[in-house]
Amino acid sequence: MHSFEELAKQFTGFFNVRHFPDVPASLYDACEYFLGLGGKRIRPVMCLMGNELFGTIHPDAFEVATAIELFHNFTLIHDDIMDKAPLRRGMQTVHTKYNESTALLGGDVMVIQAYEYINKIKTIYIHKILRLFNKTARQVCEGQQLDMDFEKKETVALDEYINMIGLKTSVLMGASLQMGAILGGAGEGNAKNLYEFGLNLGIAFQVQDDYLDAFGDPKKFGKQVGGDIVANKKTFLMIHALEAATGEQKEELQNIITNNPLHKVERVISIYKSCSADEWAKSLKEKYIAAAFQHLEDIAVLSVRKKPLQQLASFLVQRDY
Amino acid sequence: MHSFEELAKQFTGFFNVRHFPDVPASLYDACEYFLGLGGKRIRPVMCLMGNELFGTIHPDAFEVATAIELFHNFTLIHDDIMDKAPLRRGMQTVHTKYNESTALLGGDVMVIQAYEYINKIKTIYIHKILRLFNKTARQVCEGQQLDMDFEKKETVALDEYINMIGLKTSVLMGASLQMGAILGGAGEGNAKNLYEFGLNLGIAFQVQDDYLDAFGDPKKFGKQVGGDIVANKKTFLMIHALEAATGEQKEELQNIITNNPLHKVERVISIYKSCSADEWAKSLKEKYIAAAFQHLEDIAVLSVRKKPLQQLASFLVQRDY
Repeated sequence: MHSFEELAKQFTGFFNVRHFPDVPASLYDACEYFLGLGGKRIRPVMCLMGNELFGTIHPDAFEVATAIELFHNFTLIHDDIMDKAPLRRGMQTVHTKYNESTALLGGDVMVIQAYEYINKIKTIYIHKILRLFNKTARQVCEGQQLDMDFEKKETVALDEYINMIGLKTSVLMGASLQMGAILGGAGEGNAKNLYEFGLNLGIAFQVQDDYLDAFGDPKKFGKQVGGDIVANKKTFLMIHALEAATGEQKEELQNIITNNPLHKVERVISIYKSCSADEWAKSLKEKYIAAAFQHLEDIAVLSVRKKPLQQLASFLVQRDY
Repeated sequence: MHSFEELAKQFTGFFNVRHFPDVPASLYDACEYFLGLGGKRIRPVMCLMGNELFGTIHPDAFEVATAIELFHNFTLIHDDIMDKAPLRRGMQTVHTKYNESTALLGGDVMVIQAYEYINKIKTIYIHKILRLFNKTARQVCEGQQLDMDFEKKETVALDEYINMIGLKTSVLMGASLQMGAILGGAGEGNAKNLYEFGLNLGIAFQVQDDYLDAFGDPKKFGKQVGGDIVANKKTFLMIHALEAATGEQKEELQNIITNNPLHKVERVISIYKSCSADEWAKSLKEKYIAAAFQHLEDIAVLSVRKKPLQQLASFLVQRDY
């Protein structure tokens, strides 16, 4: 069995090859450029971990892990167009470095290439893997659409936000683990529990992300603290504050959102604190972590095999950067 | 055996259902809107024809035909974004009626849904169909990229243009026929010949398209004659004229392209005529039709079974509208 770091190294060795033909260079260089920006490769490693939970890693898990990572990068390239984001991992996004059409087409060939890796796996699993991959891919698109829809809405209820985050972020984590499990010959019940583990973990991960944006240590966080506040993003904290704040605080919050006053970040954080949004977020995160671990517990394999997944969970939701 | 019209009717009966969930409506209504604009459904019918060439139509051919039509519509939605086209089939394009982000995501879920239809077919053919589908899909993207690249190039050689058209238009026609053949249990040689039939036909189809833009009967053509000339599009005619025109004509042509003078369309058409671009295009088309029919001839089935494909070919390349 292997740790996250070991599997990430193995995956990188497999993944860091050219995935596209040479010509037309105007299209494929853009794809290779973006893949070259790197990333933590969390989702493909989850696929490998889901596979190793049930035995020695099968080579097909590397093919599906590659498909997952290509799919994830396809969504990033297209999301960056929609969000008009100039930078990704500190480097130019594809539509900024090249142009929007190339970013659009580059994403398109990337998702197509993902399916070519799926096509390499053993026939007995292909229908099942394709079905889960397609369903998940569709859900991720739905999540992105809802995220954009929410930007135009004045209020978003907590359960709507959780549903959106689930689609945009968590289902791919759950499905990455489950695809690994399927390729490892896991039974339905075990595979489903592993999916639910990833789903709950994904939501806890996002709560942590939203929390760090406001309460992270600027020295460790690496990004500007309060970025979500500046951008008026609906986050777990903001949604809770708008629900939990007193009449006066709520009015102030809405006023700040509308008028972008000086010291916006400090003022919003102070309201968060006075309605205990920080404590609430911590306990919400704990709730999802507990649910995740319950599902991990319910998987019928020796508990020693679950160690790497427990470590991954701790890494994802306890990080302070 | 069935004619194009009969198969188009059968396909439409199969295809005209809702392909997407109800929510989020902001995403899926856009997809259904675009599919509802209709179209001649040439490619899916080619898949059914390729299948029927080798026996009774297998139900899986309808699934793959649906995947092909969804893929084709995905490319149209994204191409319309890239081309900033306001209209498609006389109706608003998706990015015009909704917005660019929804058009982008709508295309994305459409290609994903295409793969879900492929996943419905019998296991024995799935690897072969997926491989051909993926390769073709990638090539269509390459063709679109080259088409955009060519817009910025001053001169494009004829073989470069034919290569681009082959990728952007013809490979999907060839592959649609071949996928039908594969599902019909055709041998390698027959399937390959059918692919080549479609590929050559596709190029002849494009030559005809370019020809009609300049020399079509305005009453029958349905579009503004000379649209390609107005837009300075590189077409078979323009590329040939720039190669074949005398020094003086060539200079005039380049002058017209650069300066957009009055009576541009008439002046370009007159140059086309004086360097016999019209006759040249007709003989080029004949060359590709002859190659297409040779491949059809080489397919080892009773020639009576080839009748619908011959009719389709005549329809595609002899149309004057």
